[in-house]
Amino acid sequence: MLEQTCFLFWLGLKTLLVVVNRFFLIPQVGQNNGEARDAVIILEKTPFSEETLPHLLNKDADLRLQFRNDIYSTHHLHPLPAFNEIKTTVVYPATEKHIKKYLKQEMYLINETAEDYKTITSPYIESQSFSIQWVYNILEKKAEADHIIYENPDPQDGFLLIPDLKWNQKQVDDLYLIAICQRRGLKSLRDLTGEHLSMLQNILQEGQVAISKRYNIPGSQLRIYFHYQPSYYHLHIHFTAVSYDAPGTMVERAHLLSSVIENLQTDPEYYQKRTLTYALKADDPLLQRFKEAGRM
Amino acid sequence: MLEQTCFLFWLGLKTLLVVVNRFFLIPQVGQNNGEARDAVIILEKTPFSEETLPHLLNKDADLRLQFRNDIYSTHHLHPLPAFNEIKTTVVYPATEKHIKKYLKQEMYLINETAEDYKTITSPYIESQSFSIQWVYNILEKKAEADHIIYENPDPQDGFLLIPDLKWNQKQVDDLYLIAICQRRGLKSLRDLTGEHLSMLQNILQEGQVAISKRYNIPGSQLRIYFHYQPSYYHLHIHFTAVSYDAPGTMVERAHLLSSVIENLQTDPEYYQKRTLTYALKADDPLLQRFKEAGRM
Repeated sequence: MLEQTCFLFWLGLKTLLVVVNRFFLIPQVGQNNGEARDAVIILEKTPFSEETLPHLLNKDADLRLQFRNDIYSTHHLHPLPAFNEIKTTVVYPATEKHIKKYLKQEMYLINETAEDYKTITSPYIESQSFSIQWVYNILEKKAEADHIIYENPDPQDGFLLIPDLKWNQKQVDDLYLIAICQRRGLKSLRDLTGEHLSMLQNILQEGQVAISKRYNIPGSQLRIYFHYQPSYYHLHIHFTAVSYDAPGTMVERAHLLSSVIENLQTDPEYYQKRTLTYALKADDPLLQRFKEAGRM
Repeated sequence: MLEQTCFLFWLGLKTLLVVVNRFFLIPQVGQNNGEARDAVIILEKTPFSEETLPHLLNKDADLRLQFRNDIYSTHHLHPLPAFNEIKTTVVYPATEKHIKKYLKQEMYLINETAEDYKTITSPYIESQSFSIQWVYNILEKKAEADHIIYENPDPQDGFLLIPDLKWNQKQVDDLYLIAICQRRGLKSLRDLTGEHLSMLQNILQEGQVAISKRYNIPGSQLRIYFHYQPSYYHLHIHFTAVSYDAPGTMVERAHLLSSVIENLQTDPEYYQKRTLTYALKADDPLLQRFKEAGRM
């Protein structure tokens, strides 16, 4: 493989994407009928596990001093191969489309004015007719009914609280729940007005109490926020542990519920007037619409 | 070491802190005069490097199939020890204080009202008399003068743009620059009023142009924001690449410059009135002050 052309892309410091042109030399991966095809290989350093730790730090450990200063020293540790594996995912043969899917894409910030929302974003959302039947299934207890942590059944001001699918619920370090409002027709932050304040206050207060009772995490250790743009257009609110660096908490995507409430108290039409900033991937069709409208 | 008591703390999925009581069995680390003392060991999987990659993916690679489905397969790769090292930092002997320093601390969210700022936060900042002489040294060209990327010398509305020390400037993927305002006496976001709009607009516009010229990164790929609380109390603004998940970009710490400008245009006294939310570590003395004031 050494003589082949490789392109390296760091997906993270400890995750590497390798695109190999004319990949044919690793027999474990598969036969190629003599024909050399492209491959995508993702290498990922695995997390430490409690089981392998004793093998890393036993007295035969190959621990080489790098430098020492008083009580501090750094070393290179070279564990036996069995105790230090790399997770390897191979797509072979890979097309241009696979390569693109795995590549980290360029991101662009959009400053969406109120006018942009009316003329670009809202028509785009309508045109996509994203299905949210799965959300209605949850609200109607046709799905995930046994997952519900808390429910306020009021059709106007109520909500359901359920664990997010990203959370395995085994430890509270990465606690992640979602509040889904009972009321239908609210697509996102943009639709909120002073009229929705009592619903938002219910979610803030009752959500914190329910999580404190169930998981023993006080409200002061919860980050409670909207995404804008959201990933689906039925209003919902994220609850994550403050010490957990959850995906989607960046300033260009997350809006704290407490700030949203204060904004609506100051101006009931705040979200119908303001510019909202968010990031879109280079291939997002919404970004294309902003470009076509000359707004990028 | 296996018979000793170990406490494991995951600082991240790929960074592990081990606290060892009565550590005495790894001879490479140091002699202990027969006395067993505590040690802190930090194990960290290292990033992939371009140099070792050929050794990971050559035809002799120990690549074991985990499962295969059509063109997708996952494998366990066990490289030779020399090509898969673990960075190991040892503190030995370690005191309780060392152990605490390395442990990830609980975080708490503070909802700081305008009143809290006046009665708790501002007196705290004054009492600490944090030195910002190093910032003045930069502004007066006594330090880092050769690092300056752009300067607007106006003493009221000007600023300096310099690379952040966290950025090695070798690739723009993790681009990180700081704009430091020339004007003295502005401690943070809390001090901003409508009077500062022209300075903020200079930083937004000229900062983007300077970065585009020097690094060929357009303004639409920059995240431009304040930290609140900041790490030092001379007003400064962060510029990072949008696709870079830079530390300190979370909604509970970062405030987009474009939003700050819009807020001040709507209400010149916005930041003297609003509640601002931020996270503090359990041992932060400011958190202690909020507790003493009955605000936590």
